[in-house]
Amino acid sequence: MEKVDVLVIGGSAAGIVAAVTGKTHHPDKKFLLIRKEAQVVVPCGIPYMFGSLESSDKNVIADSAVTNAGIALKIGEAVSIDRQAKVCETSDGAVINYGKLVLAIGSVPFVPGWLKGANLENVFTVPKNKVYLDDVIKKLESFKKIVTIGGGFIGVEVSDELRKKNKEVTVVEKLPNILWSAFDDVISDNAKKILENRGVTIKTGSGVKEIEGDTRVRGITLESGEFIEADAVLLSVGYVPDTDIARKAGIKLNENGFIKVDEYMRTDSPDIFAVGDCVEKRDFFTRKPSNVMLASTACAEARIAGINLFSLSTLKTFIGTIAIFSTAIGDTAFAAAGLSKRQAMEEGFDVVTGKFEGVDKHPGSLPGAKKQFVELIASRECGVILGGGVMGGVSCGELINLIGLAIQNRMTVHNILMTQIGTHPLLTAPPTAYPVIKAAESISRQIKTRKD
Amino acid sequence: MEKVDVLVIGGSAAGIVAAVTGKTHHPDKKFLLIRKEAQVVVPCGIPYMFGSLESSDKNVIADSAVTNAGIALKIGEAVSIDRQAKVCETSDGAVINYGKLVLAIGSVPFVPGWLKGANLENVFTVPKNKVYLDDVIKKLESFKKIVTIGGGFIGVEVSDELRKKNKEVTVVEKLPNILWSAFDDVISDNAKKILENRGVTIKTGSGVKEIEGDTRVRGITLESGEFIEADAVLLSVGYVPDTDIARKAGIKLNENGFIKVDEYMRTDSPDIFAVGDCVEKRDFFTRKPSNVMLASTACAEARIAGINLFSLSTLKTFIGTIAIFSTAIGDTAFAAAGLSKRQAMEEGFDVVTGKFEGVDKHPGSLPGAKKQFVELIASRECGVILGGGVMGGVSCGELINLIGLAIQNRMTVHNILMTQIGTHPLLTAPPTAYPVIKAAESISRQIKTRKD
Repeated sequence: MEKVDVLVIGGSAAGIVAAVTGKTHHPDKKFLLIRKEAQVVVPCGIPYMFGSLESSDKNVIADSAVTNAGIALKIGEAVSIDRQAKVCETSDGAVINYGKLVLAIGSVPFVPGWLKGANLENVFTVPKNKVYLDDVIKKLESFKKIVTIGGGFIGVEVSDELRKKNKEVTVVEKLPNILWSAFDDVISDNAKKILENRGVTIKTGSGVKEIEGDTRVRGITLESGEFIEADAVLLSVGYVPDTDIARKAGIKLNENGFIKVDEYMRTDSPDIFAVGDCVEKRDFFTRKPSNVMLASTACAEARIAGINLFSLSTLKTFIGTIAIFSTAIGDTAFAAAGLSKRQAMEEGFDVVTGKFEGVDKHPGSLPGAKKQFVELIASRECGVILGGGVMGGVSCGELINLIGLAIQNRMTVHNILMTQIGTHPLLTAPPTAYPVIKAAESISRQIKTRKD
Repeated sequence: MEKVDVLVIGGSAAGIVAAVTGKTHHPDKKFLLIRKEAQVVVPCGIPYMFGSLESSDKNVIADSAVTNAGIALKIGEAVSIDRQAKVCETSDGAVINYGKLVLAIGSVPFVPGWLKGANLENVFTVPKNKVYLDDVIKKLESFKKIVTIGGGFIGVEVSDELRKKNKEVTVVEKLPNILWSAFDDVISDNAKKILENRGVTIKTGSGVKEIEGDTRVRGITLESGEFIEADAVLLSVGYVPDTDIARKAGIKLNENGFIKVDEYMRTDSPDIFAVGDCVEKRDFFTRKPSNVMLASTACAEARIAGINLFSLSTLKTFIGTIAIFSTAIGDTAFAAAGLSKRQAMEEGFDVVTGKFEGVDKHPGSLPGAKKQFVELIASRECGVILGGGVMGGVSCGELINLIGLAIQNRMTVHNILMTQIGTHPLLTAPPTAYPVIKAAESISRQIKTRKD
């Protein structure tokens, strides 16, 4: 029987980061990472395998990310865990004794049970599985008409990539807009317009009644009765935790199958940690369960687990999920952090929003300058920033992280007004009209001048 | 006699922001901004007038930035202030009575008194003066060999721009490296190498003995005795506050001529505020006087003055200068915030540094991906982040602002390790290897594992 100090199950982002952080902080301990996939794809890079990346081999996380850190790697499937004996059995019959166990067992695409036709030939999902994805991508080559069900990030990104390969792509979304769970209207509307200008057909507010076909798909019927012809359908309506092995081991899950953890990422078994998509998320502001699954959140959880494996640090705990989304369509980036205005109002916050549109280089006459739009959402009571959205050039990817950092540290618009920022003609907005500060200023003024 | 509620003297970034913020927060008050320049140049854009911008007219701040906010604008020179009578006299003989006065009177290029030849023909400085700069740029067209004295940001940026116009440019810097006051060695060395690869000659550790010539310049002699031929010399060795009018009015200055202000940006006269380059800076960490002059710092001061004009806000005070520098040479951006390692050690901090080099898109095989290098400097005692430097693609401009925000809020490397960030293939580093977090992790590990 093999014996390790730390066994990590799962080789995607969360598993890798938990193992590497753990080993880095506990270099004397023996670590083993076990995963079922021969090769692991970069999760956020998956949509780009459908277009921009010439081969899925360009989207592989090198095993050296694990092995160079001094962590043993085993390809194989964990089939059972015995919490009392502290052992894990694998599909090849091996039994591994662990001191600490980290579950990074991830999620799988959600396929609605009620959706007729979901199992027809040429109906595909988008799992984190290179073998399956390579097969889908190859099959799609011979098809022309593709329908994507679901206008979230994966659905939108894959559709834009398929359009680059000249497919006739239709995105069907039940909600009133694409990217609805992340963005308020200004940003969603712009993303939709840009995507449409690139030739993608988008039908929002359109629920799917069924997927039609005999053995292979030939189209979908909307709730409205409209039929849309399709050679292939991509089903991209979310992911569910892949936690069977944890359930069988008696580890506590919530009602949706997510593993319950504390702020050190420990399950109800003191020596078993869990991180990533398989773990229950709780919203930073409300502590309500959240269904956000993001590699970046997973990695934050994984770092915290890795550090806390052998001794708890009150300085390094998970403070609740702050969804930070970013994407790009063409050369326009879209990003959001925290609550949207819609979400904040639904939760019951009295909110004030501030918007500003500037430029991302200055003067705006410089080559390559793009508009930069920022919206902040704050609590009227105290000016605490609840959320923000940005739209513009490539620097929006880090700009949203600045807003995210402010949110996580419960900063107010007053803090932002005092904040010193660095600006440069070729890199940022001008110091006189830095959009994040101007949006904060607008909120500060509204709070100050209101008459109750 | 004209009577206004608020008179702002100075029309560059700090004056504009003080006026606009003040008017925005106090819409019922009457504001007047007076400045001597017919047109105001974007200060950080000045170096790009020497090359990339086809005309200086592309680098002008539109007067509508002031007038659209409901602020009156007067072109003219303020010549004296009477603090008792609360009036300002201008060169055209007008007398303006103010309720509150904001001095945003800026800085002028420093010309060392001891430097022989500094007043020869074709020796130029780089003031914020469109008429002067237009003249310099026109004259430089006919010259080939140009020597820039001073390898700070202005010197480096102007030299790179002149090189684009095929000039033979030599930068002479007395300190051991270019951009020495902002960056540690890795970043300065890289900036120097890139600048040299673009054809600029750089001589560091080279003091200037004198500028040679009869009526017009013909070269410079270094302290080493070496002679460098030059058709023109650009003197770029810093700026000094332009505070004569304040001195004559009896407003308290420090020993270097900077106006002394409190944390609300008030001078020793209760109704007179001062902001920008003309104001004494104090370092955020040490409260020592600092000689950093940045438009972004000036604008932070100006916002605070504008808000505090009629009633003080303890939420909106100036917390001390955090220098946040950014620049770009070609398609590589360089930026720093807070203290460099060298400065922190000189101040007496026991520092730990963490470095990480990653990529700014992921997978790194995506088109346009660039290396992204991050260095953090933290206090060993508690992990508080004292400073940071970054190098990479265009997103470094906002990445340094994220680090700057962490510094201003006295965050630790432990905070950074818990931080959730957003990542996207086309916009950022991967979540598994986000350089800011990896650099913080390195420091956290060093603090944890040290044996005292």
